[in-house]
Parts: sequence; structure tokens; C-alpha cells
Amino acid sequence: MIIGGEHMQSIWYDVGTDQVHIVDQTRLPHEFQVLTLANMEAACHAIESMQVRGAPLIGVTAAYAVYLALREDAQSLDHACAALAATRPTAVNLQWALDRCRAALQSVAPESRVLQALELAQLMEKEDIAICEAIGDHGADLVESLWQEKRSSQDRLNILTHCNAGALATVDWGTALSVVYKSAERDIPLHVWVDETRPRNQGAALTCWELAQADIPHSLIVDNAGGHLMQAGLVDLCVVGSDRTTRNGDVCNKIGTYLKALAAFDNQIPFYVALPLSSIDFALDAGVNQIPIEERA
Amino acid sequence: MIIGGEHMQSIWYDVGTDQVHIVDQTRLPHEFQVLTLANMEAACHAIESMQVRGAPLIGVTAAYAVYLALREDAQSLDHACAALAATRPTAVNLQWALDRCRAALQSVAPESRVLQALELAQLMEKEDIAICEAIGDHGADLVESLWQEKRSSQDRLNILTHCNAGALATVDWGTALSVVYKSAERDIPLHVWVDETRPRNQGAALTCWELAQADIPHSLIVDNAGGHLMQAGLVDLCVVGSDRTTRNGDVCNKIGTYLKALAAFDNQIPFYVALPLSSIDFALDAGVNQIPIEERA
Repeated sequence: MIIGGEHMQSIWYDVGTDQVHIVDQTRLPHEFQVLTLANMEAACHAIESMQVRGAPLIGVTAAYAVYLALREDAQSLDHACAALAATRPTAVNLQWALDRCRAALQSVAPESRVLQALELAQLMEKEDIAICEAIGDHGADLVESLWQEKRSSQDRLNILTHCNAGALATVDWGTALSVVYKSAERDIPLHVWVDETRPRNQGAALTCWELAQADIPHSLIVDNAGGHLMQAGLVDLCVVGSDRTTRNGDVCNKIGTYLKALAAFDNQIPFYVALPLSSIDFALDAGVNQIPIEERA
Repeated sequence: MIIGGEHMQSIWYDVGTDQVHIVDQTRLPHEFQVLTLANMEAACHAIESMQVRGAPLIGVTAAYAVYLALREDAQSLDHACAALAATRPTAVNLQWALDRCRAALQSVAPESRVLQALELAQLMEKEDIAICEAIGDHGADLVESLWQEKRSSQDRLNILTHCNAGALATVDWGTALSVVYKSAERDIPLHVWVDETRPRNQGAALTCWELAQADIPHSLIVDNAGGHLMQAGLVDLCVVGSDRTTRNGDVCNKIGTYLKALAAFDNQIPFYVALPLSSIDFALDAGVNQIPIEERA
């Protein structure tokens, strides 16, 4: 992620000070503020209050939170996992990350558990970056093919995205926006339609901010406008992230994604969901009835 | 329309003072303010700035504006019609009302033209009320049938509406909300999902206000939520208005209507458009490419 011309991550560990830092996403785009997660409770609060959000970033934050908990009390693994699991019910990566931490750490002797927890969190951080970068490379191949098909008849390729599935939703690169960043690196002339994404306006506050930092042309639109733009031939491709994906391919993502997918289908526009394997919940057959939905007033 | 327990219209003519009054809809729901349209220019401004809005109300306002123009200058019929026609391109009732005024008045001698213009505007006002009431009665028959079908398995009937197609969009009763008002009068236990309707929030500002005045249970939702509520079985019927309807039945209505219609179709939920004959543009074959769309930043 480029911020003010410099490379940054959404979460990072400072070896010198033994501190975990995050970007406070509730203050963007008006204020860029870095917070330090002092302990597991601060991490729970960060996830609950959406200072960090996005399924992959929540997972990595949870792994660091397990380290923070064990640093205070090497016996607190079960307690930490239970407290963290309760923070956000929809994002399956959270449970996936906690399951992975518990499996890796529960049989480790307390004296080496803390260090191993830190190493695991750092590994998951690095994996997330690599996975998201690979998502972008794969997606950019699709975007490039589409552009080769269309470049004779138009001067830019219009991509629509909903909510924020950018670097801010992961450690770096993002999922849906990774495809955008990697496509832009290939000099494909892109323009991104950014859904406002009511009620929390993550498209307006986060996606527009990320794209502006990366100098990628984009327009903020109300969530209602997507269908009309598709009818008018102004959308070439849609790409979004996923909070949770079931075994049959049902995708649960920020409210409003379904409406855009219906419109893309009706207008024969390709609609892609960019996601890491960790967002797939193999325990669920289908999405509509089986995935718990968070309701925020 | 019931406001503060008393019956009112969105536009009315005061015989005693020879004045045309409107409710300033840009100030709702925070302030209820009545404006006097002093002349044709004030009426043009009222339409352009959306102090009055809604296809049927725009038509009646235009008819009164023609009277106001002729009252100052009985020769100004063509000028007035041209100025009024330029205020809002999408609402076909505007053109319909102006065509009707011109046809009725152009061959009338200047000395009786002013009075006839007033009588025509009053007639169109009364017609609009009668038409909207009839729309409500017809729609309530459909709602009642649906309720008879569903009442054994649920305790209320959920209606979803988009934007404001209520009394405020007409002289009285409304189109989509006329169906709601008339259904409520039949003691059908209704609950209305009110789409916020970005970017201007007419659902939040006007529809919720109207329903609150009429004491009808309702919930304000973001535009994105409609699809999810339909998937969850929480919408029994959708009803909206129309800015313009083409000969083939294509409906042009506030942005976002299309997305809700797609979701209703996908979930086999009845989707009704409540409109007067004057909203049908028989000159157009199809909507997507032929209806000019207003773009407001």
C-alpha cells in the first residue's frame, strides 16, 4: 500500500520496541493515525470497533492478539481465542486464524509458546501479503485479456467495486484492489467506479482514499448507480472481496454486493470475487441461510 | 395527506388571496414550511430546486405556473411553456401538462385566457387527486389478496418502497404510498421498508416523514439492504412510482429502482409500479436508451 508516496502495511510488528501497530481505519480518510495494540483487549476493541476490518486483516490481527495475550500470560490461549472469536461473527478468517493458532500452540511448552506465537503471527502476515499479491497477478491476467478485447473501441477499462477490499482490508495489496493495483502496473488505462457502500461508507472513506494514494483514476458513486451504469455500458468488469465463501461458491460480502451481482448478470458483465483460500468456509453448504449476518444500526 | 393530524395537499390555490401555495420539500423532514409561488419564475425555481418534485406534482405545478404567467401577460403562453419544459427533462407529466395547457389555451381570446388557465390548473389538481386515490384503491385490492394468502403464517405484511412516491410527489394520496394508505385504511397490518434513496435521501426525508404523519409502521433501510431482506423472506411486495413509462412498459424511476426490481424477480416477490396514465410516454418504444436521465452531482 502506498501512503503519501511511501510503502506501508495495515498492520506491522516493530521488532525494536516489541509493538504491534495498526492504521486506525475509523479515522480515514480525514486523519491518518497509527495505533499501538498494547494488549489482547486492545486488539479485540480494534476488531469490534472496525479500527481494523476486512476478513484477511482481521485474521492476522487475531494472530498478533494471541501473541499479545500469551506475552502477558502464557496460559491464556483458550481465553484469548474465545474472546477474539466473539468480536466479529461473519469473517471466517477470524475463526480460521484462531484455529490455526490454537493447533500450533496448544501442545507447545509455556516457556517457548510466546515466541512461537509471535513467529506464527509474522508468518501469517507474510503469507497474507504473498497471497494477496498472487490474487492481484491472477486477476490482472483477466483484466489484461478483457482490455485486449476492448481497447480498439474504448479508451479506458471501467471496473466497479463495492466496499473496501483493498490493502486496508488485508496486510497489504488487498484482494479486489490487488487486481486493480496489479492491472495499473501493467499500464492498462483503468477507471474505477467506487460504490459509496452505505451504511458505513467504506467505499467513500477507504477505497477512494487508497486509489487516490495510488494515483488511480476513480469516481465515487452512490450504491444505487451501479445498475444504471451497467445498463449504459459503462462497466466492463466488477470485482469485490468476500467475508465468507461457502463450499458451493456462495459469497457473503458487504450488504449491496448481491444487488450489483444481479445487475452484472442481467447485463452480461463479468463479476469476479477476489478471495484467499482462508475466506472459504468448507463447513457450510450454502450462504443465504447458513452464514450469520452482522446487523449494525 | 395528513400533517399534524390535519388534511393538507402538496399544492393548493387560495381563492381569497389568488395565491398558489406549495410545501417546500427541500426543508422536510426538519422544517415544515409553506411557500407562495408569486410568479412563473418562482414556479420554475420550485421545480428545478426540487421544492416540488414527483412527476404528478410537477405537472400540476406547471399548470398553475402557466396561470401565473398569463396573469402577468396573457400573451406569454409559449414563453411560459418553454421555460417550464426546460426545468426537468425526465418527468413526462411536465411535458404532458404543458401540452395540455397549450392545446386548451392557445386559441382562447386573451381576455378569457387567464381565467381558463386557472380553471384548467384547478381541474388538473382535482383529477390528480382522483387518479391517485383510484391507484390506491386498485393497489389495496392486490395487497388485500396477498394478505389473505399470507395472514395464517405471519403477523404483518412487509412492503418495500424506493424514493418517495407519496402524497408529496402528487397533489394528494401519492401513487405507491396511496396503495399503502388505502391498505392501512382496510386494517391490513402493514410494515413498510423505506429505502434511504441516495443521493438525495427522499426515502429518509420524505417517505418516512409521510408514514410517521399517517402513523404507519415503517423502518428506514440503506438502499443496499433491500436485496438481503428479500433473500431473508422479509419483503412480501414492492411498490414504487414512475418518472416516465414507455409504450413497452419500461419504467424509468429514481436510481436504484432497477436493482430492487432485479432482486424482487430473483426472489419471486411481486414488484408493482403505481402510476397515472399521464406518466406513460407513448412516443417512446423502450426505456434504457430513449429516456434522458438527469444527473445531479
